[in-house]
Amino acid sequence: MTNARMGLQLRSTVKTGGTLELTLVSVPTPEPKPEEVIVRVDASPINPSDQGLLFAGADMSTAKASGTADRPVVTASLSPAVMKAMAGRLDQSLPVGNEGAGTVVQAGASPAAQALLGKTVAILGGAMYSQYRCIKAAHCLVLPPGTTAADGASCFVNPLTALGMVATMHAEGHTALVHTAAASNLGQMLNRICIADRVGLVNIVRKPEQAEVLKKIGATHVCNSSAPTFMDDLTAALATTGATIAFDAIGGGTLAGQILTAMEIAANRSAKEYSRYGSTTHKQVYIYGSLDRGPTQFNRTFGMAWGIGGWLLTPFLQKIGFEAAQKLRERVAAEIKTTFASTYTKEVSLAGALQLDEIAIYGKQATGEKYLVDPNKGLR
Amino acid sequence: MTNARMGLQLRSTVKTGGTLELTLVSVPTPEPKPEEVIVRVDASPINPSDQGLLFAGADMSTAKASGTADRPVVTASLSPAVMKAMAGRLDQSLPVGNEGAGTVVQAGASPAAQALLGKTVAILGGAMYSQYRCIKAAHCLVLPPGTTAADGASCFVNPLTALGMVATMHAEGHTALVHTAAASNLGQMLNRICIADRVGLVNIVRKPEQAEVLKKIGATHVCNSSAPTFMDDLTAALATTGATIAFDAIGGGTLAGQILTAMEIAANRSAKEYSRYGSTTHKQVYIYGSLDRGPTQFNRTFGMAWGIGGWLLTPFLQKIGFEAAQKLRERVAAEIKTTFASTYTKEVSLAGALQLDEIAIYGKQATGEKYLVDPNKGLR
Repeated sequence: MTNARMGLQLRSTVKTGGTLELTLVSVPTPEPKPEEVIVRVDASPINPSDQGLLFAGADMSTAKASGTADRPVVTASLSPAVMKAMAGRLDQSLPVGNEGAGTVVQAGASPAAQALLGKTVAILGGAMYSQYRCIKAAHCLVLPPGTTAADGASCFVNPLTALGMVATMHAEGHTALVHTAAASNLGQMLNRICIADRVGLVNIVRKPEQAEVLKKIGATHVCNSSAPTFMDDLTAALATTGATIAFDAIGGGTLAGQILTAMEIAANRSAKEYSRYGSTTHKQVYIYGSLDRGPTQFNRTFGMAWGIGGWLLTPFLQKIGFEAAQKLRERVAAEIKTTFASTYTKEVSLAGALQLDEIAIYGKQATGEKYLVDPNKGLR
Repeated sequence: MTNARMGLQLRSTVKTGGTLELTLVSVPTPEPKPEEVIVRVDASPINPSDQGLLFAGADMSTAKASGTADRPVVTASLSPAVMKAMAGRLDQSLPVGNEGAGTVVQAGASPAAQALLGKTVAILGGAMYSQYRCIKAAHCLVLPPGTTAADGASCFVNPLTALGMVATMHAEGHTALVHTAAASNLGQMLNRICIADRVGLVNIVRKPEQAEVLKKIGATHVCNSSAPTFMDDLTAALATTGATIAFDAIGGGTLAGQILTAMEIAANRSAKEYSRYGSTTHKQVYIYGSLDRGPTQFNRTFGMAWGIGGWLLTPFLQKIGFEAAQKLRERVAAEIKTTFASTYTKEVSLAGALQLDEIAIYGKQATGEKYLVDPNKGLR
């Protein structure tokens, strides 16, 4: 029992002096309180939202490997500007991994906890790149029979974000939406939701093969931002769908502004007379990711009725309240192998996740290069 | 009577081919309907918001003068990019001038209109760079006795914008605000409002002499964006006031992002533990002007709880409704020589407003270089 309770955990530390250090440490798993369970984490995705905490903005082209095969250590440097932003986490050894799934291997005394013993559950809350995770029974989402941990590893971040985008669109009075980096796992889910819910969706991708992926799953509007006709294609799709809200995973560069500009052109197509301050239609872009960490830049060629802002899942869930959020979670569990199915390029162990050649691949956050961590791979 | 009814009017036309043409035309003043009056416009300011319509984004360094002394003509070229944005007003001869004040010289048959005969009134609604303006009696703001047209020329745009900023701050749950280009006429009004209403205000200026102007009227927090200590000064003022909303007249460049960054640093000073997505305090910048027409650029170094958007007076007034707006207008009329007093560098005739050397001055929209047009100068 005491042996079973030690577990490997991945840690990220930003050290005074400007170095990121990634390590594996052996930590004791706590004895569960009556309302808690211990989940053996069998699958946890590496989402872009995990990589912010994991890499801390370090320049991973400077990454160096040391340590042993079982306990690899990766170090990399951080620029002074990034170090300034990391002041709040300096010299703290932080666990990583937002979500995952696994088997309940131990349970506290309460009936609710005991009822979960042996069940496959999905969990959210950080420190998932760990062999074992202690968590409240009430926070476990029980997966339907026949669902593996790998099937259920991505039950929260992407599915709830995709559902949150559609809910935000409705709440703010829009009737159709735009999504960038649209061929991602999240983007594919969003297409399946919008097809099921009959919501207009304009997908923006960067490559023709990404457009193909989306067309195959039934997407109607796919615009390739690398095409010379992009602005015209986008404007036409916006005019057809009436989309006036966008969710942008890129963040940096000119894309957010281009979307607002195209929305303005589409809005003015139906205008009857010249309006000196542009269309009165409110046009909104929410930036929810930072695939391009560079500065955001836009020409204000879209009138005065516009907004750009940050969008984050947690405040959204807090805003709608527990019951509304629970309904979303139950939809995810019920449709985890269809609407909310994720696909992964590769499954790695904790030590595997710290191999430089693997980091070079998943660190790019390229569409179609998503990794799954199995923290118990080779250790069961 | 028929002679009295012809009046000069300033017109701005964007011509196919890429030329802006500014002219004076003689137009017949309409016979007022029962509910209307004719105002002889004696004073009308040249606000930045007028210059958008007037110059249409033309490159005024290419401006050429022709015509006669009484009927000058100014032409200038527009870039292809600007021409694209001006498609909606192509070859339309548009009158200019948002607001003004003058004497009611003729009135329709209704008692409300007749009651205004001989009164000095402030009016809003465009086409104020005209000798005569026909307008509904109900839309005239009667100025208190002893108020000249010049005193009352700027009753609407700046005063209501300044009041609208404070009202928006309250409505969106903030308790103090930031203002850029803060030594402007509008900025000075905002200081007087905030001092009277005990609202914290952080003023951002670009020059030490502008800081002096504001300190003289009682401003507490003035930060000079040209000073090497600007970011520290701004952060300290934000921490002291708790300001989490800003109104920015500049638009282009990096200032909006710098304000958000300083707000984030101020918010994190009171944070107890590292939050990977930054502070949860919502930070907002509204861009209401475009003194810098260049692109807006920002690094997203201020967490995820932020927004940047356009802000415009008319939608704000529509949102609060007629009665609330009327209360604001009455406050302006009552305090037009104190809180809402404007100062002008120079008073010009309609022909004077089209002199290249004058355009070169007021076209810069520099703080302290505000012009007043008297459309009846030399013609009364």
